[in-house]
Amino acid sequence: MEEITGILVDLFIIFTAAKVAGEFFVRLKQPEIVGEVLAGIIIGPYALGLIGSPDGDLVQLFHGDREAAEEALNITFDVIAGLGVIILLFFVGLETRLRDLLNVRNRAVAVGVLGIVLPFVLGFGLISATGRSDVESAFVATAMVATSVGITARVLGDIGVIRSTEARVILGAAVVDDVLGLLLLAVVSSYGEDNVDALELTLTALVAIGFIVFAALVGTRVIRRYSIHLERLHVRNAPFLVAMILMLGLSALAGIVGLAAIIGAFIAGMMLAEAEEGFELERQSQAVYDFLVPFFFVVIGTKVDLGAFDDPEILAIALGVTVLAVMGKLLGGAIASRGMGGRSAAIVGVGMVPRGEVGLVVAGVGAGIGAVSGDMFAVVVFMSVATTLLAPPVLVWLYRGRDAPADSGLMAEP
Amino acid sequence: MEEITGILVDLFIIFTAAKVAGEFFVRLKQPEIVGEVLAGIIIGPYALGLIGSPDGDLVQLFHGDREAAEEALNITFDVIAGLGVIILLFFVGLETRLRDLLNVRNRAVAVGVLGIVLPFVLGFGLISATGRSDVESAFVATAMVATSVGITARVLGDIGVIRSTEARVILGAAVVDDVLGLLLLAVVSSYGEDNVDALELTLTALVAIGFIVFAALVGTRVIRRYSIHLERLHVRNAPFLVAMILMLGLSALAGIVGLAAIIGAFIAGMMLAEAEEGFELERQSQAVYDFLVPFFFVVIGTKVDLGAFDDPEILAIALGVTVLAVMGKLLGGAIASRGMGGRSAAIVGVGMVPRGEVGLVVAGVGAGIGAVSGDMFAVVVFMSVATTLLAPPVLVWLYRGRDAPADSGLMAEP
Repeated sequence: MEEITGILVDLFIIFTAAKVAGEFFVRLKQPEIVGEVLAGIIIGPYALGLIGSPDGDLVQLFHGDREAAEEALNITFDVIAGLGVIILLFFVGLETRLRDLLNVRNRAVAVGVLGIVLPFVLGFGLISATGRSDVESAFVATAMVATSVGITARVLGDIGVIRSTEARVILGAAVVDDVLGLLLLAVVSSYGEDNVDALELTLTALVAIGFIVFAALVGTRVIRRYSIHLERLHVRNAPFLVAMILMLGLSALAGIVGLAAIIGAFIAGMMLAEAEEGFELERQSQAVYDFLVPFFFVVIGTKVDLGAFDDPEILAIALGVTVLAVMGKLLGGAIASRGMGGRSAAIVGVGMVPRGEVGLVVAGVGAGIGAVSGDMFAVVVFMSVATTLLAPPVLVWLYRGRDAPADSGLMAEP
Repeated sequence: MEEITGILVDLFIIFTAAKVAGEFFVRLKQPEIVGEVLAGIIIGPYALGLIGSPDGDLVQLFHGDREAAEEALNITFDVIAGLGVIILLFFVGLETRLRDLLNVRNRAVAVGVLGIVLPFVLGFGLISATGRSDVESAFVATAMVATSVGITARVLGDIGVIRSTEARVILGAAVVDDVLGLLLLAVVSSYGEDNVDALELTLTALVAIGFIVFAALVGTRVIRRYSIHLERLHVRNAPFLVAMILMLGLSALAGIVGLAAIIGAFIAGMMLAEAEEGFELERQSQAVYDFLVPFFFVVIGTKVDLGAFDDPEILAIALGVTVLAVMGKLLGGAIASRGMGGRSAAIVGVGMVPRGEVGLVVAGVGAGIGAVSGDMFAVVVFMSVATTLLAPPVLVWLYRGRDAPADSGLMAEP
């Protein structure tokens, strides 16, 4: 056990940096996760280099092979960060009812679909035009696609308008484009992994869709029907433990069928959303979320090489991707929200802008399989951070310009 | 991120096995942790071999070096298990008030000290007599020393006698011998690490004692005085997050000064026990405990080679160690509890018998630095499991034999 002291020191630095930066950003009324990613950039190997160097004991364990020790350390961080993002998507799932997906308004679907298509097409066009491969372009374009439900909901809650009409359209659309975005990620991932042929790609997509449909439709029904029996278990906090088993199991299964593990976690959460009222899983799991999720954002940050922006071309691409990411969502929101009035359409569009963790997840998956290069990864992080920082003040300004309903201030805290 | 699918599958198997075995043992009215360790033995590499084999992706990452991939996988499991045991000792600390330590009655101290000295001397004598080295004998003897506060408290709570006079003596003594046992572990660990000279050993012990005294005395005072200001932090669940930072930080620091990391975690918990009423940290951290602690016990189990007991000598040693571990505590309890009456003295002695996780931690530390061989590790696990299984039914039987008034715990001590 003692060879882990060095790793413990790193975990302490990561968690402390995440929370100090988070506190700082909350006080600036900015999303905490942005602070966490920036903390990762600062303490990571490309800046201060406070973490990621294996200590002597660890190097010794690999018979003095420093590179192997570093790889082992990276895997350890990736696993803890991976557990963090799995918990995160599990929570997004917990907030998503299947019936919200099935009953979703036409408008929300239109906003969601256009919010996928426009940024993807615009992004793919831009990156392809710079001479990158199709796979890399597709990954960057996919990272531009999915609105972060968590970020959007938290921003809307923070400014007290979570029950406005626009907020409902935004939330519905965010769910739609989250699912479509995850599906897109699955397709792009399996495309990027090796030189698969069209048949294999189609098969993977079919298995993925089958897994999602089966787990979502049958799983939610099973949970709705049988979750009451969890109370018969004798082990302490049985519903929470079964939730964790389901989360780990479906994540692993998603990975096995070729999907991103987080899709399994999201579905596990959505299944359990059916039992949420009875078991308060969100409240029960809060500590695991608070303890593990920050590791994901900081570890993502440690992978960002700011040096990439020394190249004016990369900086130009980052700005271009960010502009197109904002434009795509604004345009999609505006087209799909015709008839709601100009300001409302603008609110919907802006509300879809924050990419938050989802863009980072996509880029992380792409980098993990070697399909996304360091500079394009930095571009995606720039875009995620920029869109997440841009949206809140604009939303506040747009809502301030109209007569907010009197009860909007009574919204429960997120 | 995708190379971790294989690890996710293993984590799923570990967690599920832990909880299925736990449920089974709870139904048998046996401690859950015994089930978790047995689950680890069963799924581990020495029995079914369901976990611990790196998948192709992981092996590929180490340029095909299977051994390095296995080592990396082991480190990952050790880190997650390490976080688990850190959380566990943090919780033990949360249940321990410094003033309970300082105000502890003479009897509890006597029971605690005798309960350390007798098993250590008996154990060291037995193992030395079998021809093992002093370091290995000292580790096995240390593993026979510390009563698990958690196990003892849980057993007493389960049979509803947590407020009896005997229970108070047991709990006080358990705290004393936990702290002494941890200190003993620190000394034995630094002794076992390399061929340190007496001066270095003394220095390490002094630094360790200084760290404990400073953290415990100053730390608890600081927390008592300033913890109220945690409410000024803006980040969500700030007290919990600060608690986790303190836990990781003191664990890392303990490791740096040469102590076991868990000692730092215990002290962090004890410091925060002063703020427990205000912040309900135990409730806040419960999910982290429930999610991470099982990994520790299962991973411990995976390290047990049952094949060791094919050797009749090892089996004989295991039985001998178990008998001496029980005898040492019974004798210590009986001597120190003179004047309480025979049955009460027996209750105190039996109450000190379960070694639970502490014995396993000690053996794990010893195995980690190569001081404890595989067969002696199996011996300690046998002793820990046997003592933990033996005590509860005997305690129930002893309490059943007397008329225990419900409020007998309020009786003044001699």
